[in-house]
Amino acid sequence: MIYLDNAATTLKKPDCVVAAVTEALCNMGNSSRGTHDSSLKSARAVFAARSSLAKLFNAPGPEQVVFTQNSTEALNMALCGLFCKGDHVITTALEHNSVLRPLYRLEDEGVISLSVVPADRQGRPDYDAFSRLIRPETRAIVCTHASNLTGNVMDLERVGAIAKSHGLLLVVDASQTAGAYPIDMKRMNISVLCFTGHKGLMGPQGTGGMCLARDVRIRPFKVGGSGVQSYSRAHPAEMPTRLEAGTLNGHGIAGLGAGVDYILEKGVDAIHAYEIALAKHFYEGVRDIPGVTVYGDFTNWNRTAVVTLNIGDYDSGAVSDALWEDFGIATRPGAHCAPLMHHALGTAEQGAVRFSFALFNTLDEADAAIAAVKELAQCD
Amino acid sequence: MIYLDNAATTLKKPDCVVAAVTEALCNMGNSSRGTHDSSLKSARAVFAARSSLAKLFNAPGPEQVVFTQNSTEALNMALCGLFCKGDHVITTALEHNSVLRPLYRLEDEGVISLSVVPADRQGRPDYDAFSRLIRPETRAIVCTHASNLTGNVMDLERVGAIAKSHGLLLVVDASQTAGAYPIDMKRMNISVLCFTGHKGLMGPQGTGGMCLARDVRIRPFKVGGSGVQSYSRAHPAEMPTRLEAGTLNGHGIAGLGAGVDYILEKGVDAIHAYEIALAKHFYEGVRDIPGVTVYGDFTNWNRTAVVTLNIGDYDSGAVSDALWEDFGIATRPGAHCAPLMHHALGTAEQGAVRFSFALFNTLDEADAAIAAVKELAQCD
Repeated sequence: MIYLDNAATTLKKPDCVVAAVTEALCNMGNSSRGTHDSSLKSARAVFAARSSLAKLFNAPGPEQVVFTQNSTEALNMALCGLFCKGDHVITTALEHNSVLRPLYRLEDEGVISLSVVPADRQGRPDYDAFSRLIRPETRAIVCTHASNLTGNVMDLERVGAIAKSHGLLLVVDASQTAGAYPIDMKRMNISVLCFTGHKGLMGPQGTGGMCLARDVRIRPFKVGGSGVQSYSRAHPAEMPTRLEAGTLNGHGIAGLGAGVDYILEKGVDAIHAYEIALAKHFYEGVRDIPGVTVYGDFTNWNRTAVVTLNIGDYDSGAVSDALWEDFGIATRPGAHCAPLMHHALGTAEQGAVRFSFALFNTLDEADAAIAAVKELAQCD
Repeated sequence: MIYLDNAATTLKKPDCVVAAVTEALCNMGNSSRGTHDSSLKSARAVFAARSSLAKLFNAPGPEQVVFTQNSTEALNMALCGLFCKGDHVITTALEHNSVLRPLYRLEDEGVISLSVVPADRQGRPDYDAFSRLIRPETRAIVCTHASNLTGNVMDLERVGAIAKSHGLLLVVDASQTAGAYPIDMKRMNISVLCFTGHKGLMGPQGTGGMCLARDVRIRPFKVGGSGVQSYSRAHPAEMPTRLEAGTLNGHGIAGLGAGVDYILEKGVDAIHAYEIALAKHFYEGVRDIPGVTVYGDFTNWNRTAVVTLNIGDYDSGAVSDALWEDFGIATRPGAHCAPLMHHALGTAEQGAVRFSFALFNTLDEADAAIAAVKELAQCD
């Protein structure tokens, strides 16, 4: 199998991730629930993972790193816990439903009003719209760091500067970039960074979280057992316990920590350079094939290692199935949970076939994918 | 190490659980996100786990099984998503903060009013109080299946019959019983069964969920990517997607499914009998030691394999530390996130030392624990 669906989940994890999870499954107790060795082992692994993530993202400190099940949960927690009635929020056409649906729900409940920064047919956001859409009651900009559909990266330094100059919160969905593209919370003025563990961070599914700037307070989403302050009616107010309830995914977090340490050692820049080299090779091999339409902005390579295309007017699902059945190449077709982006690209009906590369892919695999696209395009 | 903290998390998992997680970490894609083999492998593992859980709990069907990060999340989802302004809810003094704190929050927000069924000094609930506390606006009984502090089991058939006869929902916290004590949703008239994966079900941390009776509808807690209906503003309304958003913990769920299958093969009755034999042996060895006070109802063995005690007026944390440092025995001291239960038992100040047994413990380990308690009590 040639696995090119890494933007959905990285299939191949570093050996150290598998080893860390296996070891944890055999020896790890419940974090913060007791003082015997197996409980402390869990608490230490959780703290180490917080520290590594804080280092990777230049977050204020380990206590500002909160663990969730995935980025969707982190985004729900942030968006439900930050806004008050009357707040205005700006988001973008690049967003995934993990951002849009929580915002739509808040809008439908009459809590917030919502404006959307549009994108052009190359999926590029209209950066000028951010400032144009700001009103006196605007509270936040909520945006993805990169489109899961096109791989276009949002210029977060530019958006962060706008947010800072207007005193707005900046909530970022880093599902597509965490571990695969440099992120610096402080330099980018990010208030809340939401990430998932099972994509670029190369950790297990069931892991993810958020990093909070020092002055950001989110109302608790879930409350319950905390292992401390048991006689208080209310969930503890201190970070990170404030936003975590019940037993953490210690086994998964051990693996996530190993994945992040692996990335810190390799360097995000080096990982990004390698992945982009593969994507560029593939892009250059397919862009001129007659009948192939590639989506997104390829005028520069400040992007993620995603190349999304269609062949003629073939249904993207049929193309993806043929890639799998006839060539053993795993891709993702369809709507990609990014409805506004598809409307901007003009692919709402057809969907699109996404090829997404990661660290364990090779140039040979990219070549095989080019050959497969060529062959399918000739059938057109 | 002698690990007797299984009520916090089972440390030793069946080999098949570790193998399933390891295999999944090497070969599993993203469930419901694509149609290539690795994605389908994940979807099939998730569906198999739903089916096994439905069988274990006699739930209406696999689509009524929802995965969450842990039972705390399931309880938050159920309690936040079931009640409307003006509802009255009955709970009990046996509850963990994972039940109490979500209910207190709803009470403090003016959504529900709350009544608590009291418990006596043996931690037994006053069953007559359930009927006595019912009002016209009572909507639900929310109760644990077993106290995490005493191991006393709630007679759910009795409570379920009361709920049924008054048309109330019955929401059950099965954190202490799932996999370790028989549960039959239909026979017990359970509306929502909330469970965690990492205790009696012997699965990985980061797994858990809820089973819903056919006619129960819970408002979505988290919304976002669903892999289907991508162009709809709203999260899909169909079960189980209705209550799941973002990438599932496929790796963990593969392990949970293996754990549940292991339990189905062994039989819950057989597992319970074995664990109770250990707890009984330990109880009989410590109950008459001078200075030792055991908490809970031991007039019958319809209980979980938990024995909680104090030695004289020693702080429970000091005793637990001594058990670990001097004897290598892992227990859990302190407040156990069960404030009302401690008040009923009279142990709010001292806390209590919990010994909790599981399938991979042995009689020799119980004997060693008895000897350690004897020795510590002699120092008293």
